[in-house]
Amino acid sequence: MSQPQHLTVPQVTGDLYAEVQTFYARQMRRADALDIEGFAETFTDDGEVVHADGGRTRGRAEMTEAMRARLPRYKGVSTQHWFGQLLIEPLADGALGVSYYTLVAMVDGDGLSFQPTYTVDDVLVREPGGDLRTRSRIIRRSGPGRR
Amino acid sequence: MSQPQHLTVPQVTGDLYAEVQTFYARQMRRADALDIEGFAETFTDDGEVVHADGGRTRGRAEMTEAMRARLPRYKGVSTQHWFGQLLIEPLADGALGVSYYTLVAMVDGDGLSFQPTYTVDDVLVREPGGDLRTRSRIIRRSGPGRR
Amino acid sequence: MSQPQHLTVPQVTGDLYAEVQTFYARQMRRADALDIEGFAETFTDDGEVVHADGGRTRGRAEMTEAMRARLPRYKGVSTQHWFGQLLIEPLADGALGVSYYTLVAMVDGDGLSFQPTYTVDDVLVREPGGDLRTRSRIIRRSGPGRR
Repeated sequence: MSQPQHLTVPQVTGDLYAEVQTFYARQMRRADALDIEGFAETFTDDGEVVHADGGRTRGRAEMTEAMRARLPRYKGVSTQHWFGQLLIEPLADGALGVSYYTLVAMVDGDGLSFQPTYTVDDVLVREPGGDLRTRSRIIRRSGPGRR
Repeated sequence: MSQPQHLTVPQVTGDLYAEVQTFYARQMRRADALDIEGFAETFTDDGEVVHADGGRTRGRAEMTEAMRARLPRYKGVSTQHWFGQLLIEPLADGALGVSYYTLVAMVDGDGLSFQPTYTVDDVLVREPGGDLRTRSRIIRRSGPGRR
Repeated sequence: MSQPQHLTVPQVTGDLYAEVQTFYARQMRRADALDIEGFAETFTDDGEVVHADGGRTRGRAEMTEAMRARLPRYKGVSTQHWFGQLLIEPLADGALGVSYYTLVAMVDGDGLSFQPTYTVDDVLVREPGGDLRTRSRIIRRSGPGRR
């Protein structure tokens, strides 16, 4: 039997935990409202997103363009993005590494369905005004051998 | 491209975040246990609920009566009410505005199913003894054009 | 109508709430990664788990053996364990009683499905080094009359 490894990691304060959860609750309200401009503003100006299919956007302009192109598929569909099992890790440069599970519920004329689950790794940075913003996001589809 | 709006809002402390989450965990334990009296006690005496279909109850007496009328449909069914993407906002009168997503899992003889997703807006008040209670609740069904 | 009962219970601090949530986020990352040894290390050496079917394991050795026996059923399947409606209650001996809902999403070649929902009662203890570990876990399947 192996020696138990030490599990200790830097403790996240309750204030930071609440702040990060609140940041995501706001960011996802905008995503689910299809408020593309508002969603893009929760990223840094050069924010980067790597999607599960390998697609990638860099910067707010590219992000809003890509989201506008996807808008038609949300016609008549309402989404709820749920995040769970959040892990927050302070990074060397003062940024925050945040990892979480996602579950996306979709409601259309046929009722409720779910998109596949994903695991997401974000880097959040604190802007001069004090706000958090997402600097990078890597989305990984859960699946056999891709955890 | 629009100027990024300032995202800053009053910070919610970790203590308040934990208290509100704990309040809902207890309130929903009672709902899922079909403890109607216990559930009603988590509302103020004049607590008001506006349901997604426009139905409305005012005060604990009306609330418990309406819940008792719905009891037969939960025969042989067990529910779990999940809340997500919680947003807490202090209001002018010391009350708390809280908004969240809901997902309700139901287990019966046929297995697991889900009710439609909702977005809920609560007003919580602190009673003289220090307890939080729900003063009003507005439940909105997620769906195309109703976000 | 009954007198409203006093709802007050010992307040959980934001720091403790964040610590416990983070503990589970790490524990479940290991479960979902099928990291059996790593998962077992999040339990005390004599940690006990009572499963919904009445089966029971005592100690890390028995736990890892039982998990290895279940491994084949996770071939080609990826899981996400979600926890919700967490309730933390300090116990007399300094341990923590934690209760939560679980929802387990599974992705395989056929897409997304869910395991039945459970309600879990844990006892967490703080090890000399300061880490939390699970000393006991009782898993109850949600279902009619078994809440």
